Amino acid sequence: MNASQPGPMSLVPFVSVDDMMRLVLGIGVETVLTELGGYIEEDFRRWESFDKTPRVAAHSDEGVIELMPTSDGKAYGFKYVNGHPKNFQGGRQTVTAFGVLADVDTGYPVLLTEMTILTALRTAATSAVVAKYLAPKGGRTMAMIGNGAQSEFQCLAFKTICGIDTVRLYDIDPQATAKAARNLAGKGLTVIPCASAQEAVQGAEIITTCTADKQYATILTDNMVGAGVHINAIGGDCPGKTELHKDILLRSDVFVEYPPQTRIEGEIQQMPEDFPVTEIWRVMTGQAPGRTDDRQITLFDSVGFATEDFSALRYVHDKIRGTNLYQNLDLLADPDDPRDLFGMLDRRSASLKVA
Amino acid sequence: MNASQPGPMSLVPFVSVDDMMRLVLGIGVETVLTELGGYIEEDFRRWESFDKTPRVAAHSDEGVIELMPTSDGKAYGFKYVNGHPKNFQGGRQTVTAFGVLADVDTGYPVLLTEMTILTALRTAATSAVVAKYLAPKGGRTMAMIGNGAQSEFQCLAFKTICGIDTVRLYDIDPQATAKAARNLAGKGLTVIPCASAQEAVQGAEIITTCTADKQYATILTDNMVGAGVHINAIGGDCPGKTELHKDILLRSDVFVEYPPQTRIEGEIQQMPEDFPVTEIWRVMTGQAPGRTDDRQITLFDSVGFATEDFSALRYVHDKIRGTNLYQNLDLLADPDDPRDLFGMLDRRSASLKVA
Repeated sequence: MNASQPGPMSLVPFVSVDDMMRLVLGIGVETVLTELGGYIEEDFRRWESFDKTPRVAAHSDEGVIELMPTSDGKAYGFKYVNGHPKNFQGGRQTVTAFGVLADVDTGYPVLLTEMTILTALRTAATSAVVAKYLAPKGGRTMAMIGNGAQSEFQCLAFKTICGIDTVRLYDIDPQATAKAARNLAGKGLTVIPCASAQEAVQGAEIITTCTADKQYATILTDNMVGAGVHINAIGGDCPGKTELHKDILLRSDVFVEYPPQTRIEGEIQQMPEDFPVTEIWRVMTGQAPGRTDDRQITLFDSVGFATEDFSALRYVHDKIRGTNLYQNLDLLADPDDPRDLFGMLDRRSASLKVA
Repeated sequence: MNASQPGPMSLVPFVSVDDMMRLVLGIGVETVLTELGGYIEEDFRRWESFDKTPRVAAHSDEGVIELMPTSDGKAYGFKYVNGHPKNFQGGRQTVTAFGVLADVDTGYPVLLTEMTILTALRTAATSAVVAKYLAPKGGRTMAMIGNGAQSEFQCLAFKTICGIDTVRLYDIDPQATAKAARNLAGKGLTVIPCASAQEAVQGAEIITTCTADKQYATILTDNMVGAGVHINAIGGDCPGKTELHKDILLRSDVFVEYPPQTRIEGEIQQMPEDFPVTEIWRVMTGQAPGRTDDRQITLFDSVGFATEDFSALRYVHDKIRGTNLYQNLDLLADPDDPRDLFGMLDRRSASLKVA
């Protein structure tokens, strides 16, 4: 091994934003949502095999930076993700992310990947997979309230996984709605821009809320939610940030990912500590009922959990095999003798002097 | 902006292992240790401005994977680090690491860097900076017990920061000692390989222990430690992993980085919860005494803390400015309209079809 060339153990496959776009487009967005949904459901079904911990959050006035680790004992994954509602004013994403998959037996990373696009995909796939268990049968219309970066992914995931055919869009910013409508044109959905949230929910069996304000907001009031609806609440995902009036929670059966995290970050942060919730993995494994009658209001109080990112990392790791959709990064030191890190450095000095 | 070319906000500087070696060698290893020690000391002195949390550890039979985040309110840093004692049998490093520095106001990463070499440097610099406050004045000889990947860095840091001129090396594996002695030849230290730990500590004013077994081991027994010595205990850094007999702890004044983490991971995990310790930042700011007399045994029960990595990330971020010692990674999605992530993906599809 040449001292100036990284050894094979130093290299970690890296999937850039452009690689991710080529991977997703090569497979097809809707196929990715479906396949990724399969990985997510598979991992929810083996929920008890995961090490689970609430994400580690660093809050500031402007937003939050979070680390979301989990492990199934063989692989370890974590995601770095931020949430900064004002970012778009400076041309930045509200949410950006990247993640790492590693081998538990050695601790060596086996994948580093962009996760901004991947998080949008996994969030949408999770919502739609959960809705398979909770949304009213035969529901074909979704209200999509909040038409930011996540909205089109939600619409397509519900189309391909749950079979909706109509989306009713609303955002406080009409330009956001216009953008989403433009992007969804020709994608096999009837797209209806609406002038108010009230208008958007009319006739919708599914209501998805995905707004980004870091504050207690009331996107949905109690009178807007009729019997039999499924609410997919995505936007409330950190302390002090909610979207639903608490009266809606009192009328709903609430389903969550991981209660210790959701009680801090989700809509149910408005409720007492013992407010009853059902863990969605228990529904997926048949240990708890999902929707039980036509007039029930079901609410998925989604905050995003580390296992969903783990599923997404697994998926990408599987899919890039045999492709050129990654580059190898010289991320890990790999001396000839693993205990001779200093010698590796010292010998590099000699090769620099020669060069 | 060309759809197939990442925009400027998508790019994150990445320092590879080879870039790190060129950076460190360009500055000089001892100068790096001294300058990095300065950054570490500066951050310990403003300890109260940091968000602190014990690291998030995922333990397995073979080792541990940890995330170590911290923030000073302006910058946020975290390190991914593993500890797998058996790794060297497969040609891998026991400890590998990488880290990220990010801007708190936007949540955007501003640096991704290898940290295997950097961790070795920061650990050594931390030990030596702490010893400035605790080691006996005029001490010139250090026993270095455990001659693995960290050992040469420790020896050079104590030489350049504390002024030692002699190191007495011991490892249960004589080949490790031979490797360290070879690497330290010509570095301005008198190097004395020893056949036992007992022999190594003879005449040493400073004893550094840095062994990697994931078990309770007794590298130093009580009778080996004479009055006036400073012990720099590096190796005990996770639950179930210690190096010192507890009788030594009872005779010593113990200094630690961050008690909530050290009580879990350090030598003092052998002691009751209320075992008295002094936080090293309080010594550095003059709020607590360091060494007070010649016969006192001082013990730095070091487990490594996130602020030290933060200091190291800050240092690298400062030092690569204006150099070519990094590459820009297309890590963050950067659509023209930040709320139009889907559109970015969709438009990439068009450019792929044209191409």
